[in-house]
Amino acid sequence: MTTTIDSWAAQIGAGDVRAISRAVSAIENRSPEAEEILRQLFPHTGRAFRIGITGAPGTGKSTLVDRLAGHYRTEKKTVGVIAVDPSSPFTGGAILGDRIRMQGHASDEGIFIRSMATRGFLGGLAQATGDTALLLDAAGKEMILVETVGVGQGEIEIVRLADCTLVVLMPGMGDDVQNLKAGLMEIGDIFVLNKSDREGADRFEQQLLAMLHMIPEREGWKPVVVRTVATENKGITELAQEIARFREHFANAHDRRSRELAYWKEWLVRLLQTRLLERVVGSHMSEAQFESLAGQVAARKKDPYTAVKEILARAGLKEE
Amino acid sequence: MTTTIDSWAAQIGAGDVRAISRAVSAIENRSPEAEEILRQLFPHTGRAFRIGITGAPGTGKSTLVDRLAGHYRTEKKTVGVIAVDPSSPFTGGAILGDRIRMQGHASDEGIFIRSMATRGFLGGLAQATGDTALLLDAAGKEMILVETVGVGQGEIEIVRLADCTLVVLMPGMGDDVQNLKAGLMEIGDIFVLNKSDREGADRFEQQLLAMLHMIPEREGWKPVVVRTVATENKGITELAQEIARFREHFANAHDRRSRELAYWKEWLVRLLQTRLLERVVGSHMSEAQFESLAGQVAARKKDPYTAVKEILARAGLKEE
Repeated sequence: MTTTIDSWAAQIGAGDVRAISRAVSAIENRSPEAEEILRQLFPHTGRAFRIGITGAPGTGKSTLVDRLAGHYRTEKKTVGVIAVDPSSPFTGGAILGDRIRMQGHASDEGIFIRSMATRGFLGGLAQATGDTALLLDAAGKEMILVETVGVGQGEIEIVRLADCTLVVLMPGMGDDVQNLKAGLMEIGDIFVLNKSDREGADRFEQQLLAMLHMIPEREGWKPVVVRTVATENKGITELAQEIARFREHFANAHDRRSRELAYWKEWLVRLLQTRLLERVVGSHMSEAQFESLAGQVAARKKDPYTAVKEILARAGLKEE
Repeated sequence: MTTTIDSWAAQIGAGDVRAISRAVSAIENRSPEAEEILRQLFPHTGRAFRIGITGAPGTGKSTLVDRLAGHYRTEKKTVGVIAVDPSSPFTGGAILGDRIRMQGHASDEGIFIRSMATRGFLGGLAQATGDTALLLDAAGKEMILVETVGVGQGEIEIVRLADCTLVVLMPGMGDDVQNLKAGLMEIGDIFVLNKSDREGADRFEQQLLAMLHMIPEREGWKPVVVRTVATENKGITELAQEIARFREHFANAHDRRSRELAYWKEWLVRLLQTRLLERVVGSHMSEAQFESLAGQVAARKKDPYTAVKEILARAGLKEE
């Protein structure tokens, strides 16, 4: 197996689309090969710039991601796109219109697009997304766009993987209302006002700017607003410029090392949680068994502490 | 020890303040006694109604919680208050002005107030809060108010413990702006427009109502807005009425069992994560050792998968 893994890793390193695709599937299926591959590839990571893109449904996120990817391709930069849908129970490569989206870039080897969805009762989507981003980084993708829908705990975890976070908004839908649903104000580095040719865009932008004045600067970076009309490819160059300016700002930041350290601490804790749950729960009990245990707790026939003790004992973890 | 635990548990069941206080400290310190106590008390839980209260700083949350607690006391209901501050590194009973807040209720045995703050590098605050809520439930507190600041992943986890969630807002501070920072629209069952005697309250309420029309009903419950001026004790009775109406709505819901099951599944996964991290990481390595490992990963001298493998091996968890 080692030689196979070696040549597989080499193919990924060379940017081979089928090899990358197989590896993403291995990550999704939690196969041991995935970890072996990622281990081999890790020293070759750290070159990509990861951009997180989030916002409410209907804001035109996917089109924006497509256009931004297209922009980077005209600059001869290689691009990876990971579209994450934590609310979708579907898996594999067909969700979120991958196939349709791929058509525009079908003959382009410089771009790789993949969707990821919720996996099983133990979660792990943020981990799978992080693993895939590392994989694409090692595969030489220079810009990695991680797109996610909405504002939940899962989405925030996913966006935290990124170096730079775009929050996509749009005017209309009751004007102030759209804002209210965003709730991503705290995590945005760049705010994209998409569909900015619509009525109310100016007023919306003013409100947004007024609001941003109140948010404390993040290490000298003041969040900015960029107006786009993604469907007409308007504002994409300006957006890419702001992203470049953000990247430069933090590349020169003197606290870069402490940011990196905090990033990897969080990564390790999450990886540990994922692995421990898989190892201790996933491989020793079925979802049905887990559900039955939860049912006993809900009926107060068993306390949760004893239930957890029993799960740990199944996995050979005795009380210390 | 068993007899001591037995009598301790009995004292808690009788509502003895010092016994409850000691148990909360045991939970905070992750002492094995805490789990033993909780195990004994669990069959006596399930009677309390848990209310989560969240909102941005400055909205008057703490005063509102005080007044609501006071209201329940006039109805002769016993009350537990847990004030959680995920951003504060301080521990023990002195944060968030506990002592000042306690003064108003100092001679009242029917109310128990306690603050909780972030614990160590492995987290576990949501778990400690959940454990404390169970403890207060077993101690006979009928209404448990869990107050938390802001909108982060941690806060959402904490609020999800509650049966009913209040989101506290206020007019002013740039009108629409305050809303923008809330980001809790999706989790609110009842929206409290506090400081509603301020200018702009009407306009703010209209915007809020317009927005709430767009949020899908949650199992037949349409989120409502209640106007309060907590400092003047205005609107508190109306708020308590809406909470009672919410409680009744869900007490009669036919899907109560499936909601309970989902609740305990999430609880078990979180307890497992917390316990596994404590057991596997916390008891086998120091924060400094963990940090050094993360440093090696950040420097790409070690890959995160190998780092996690090494942590698991320390705890005697070999590859399977």
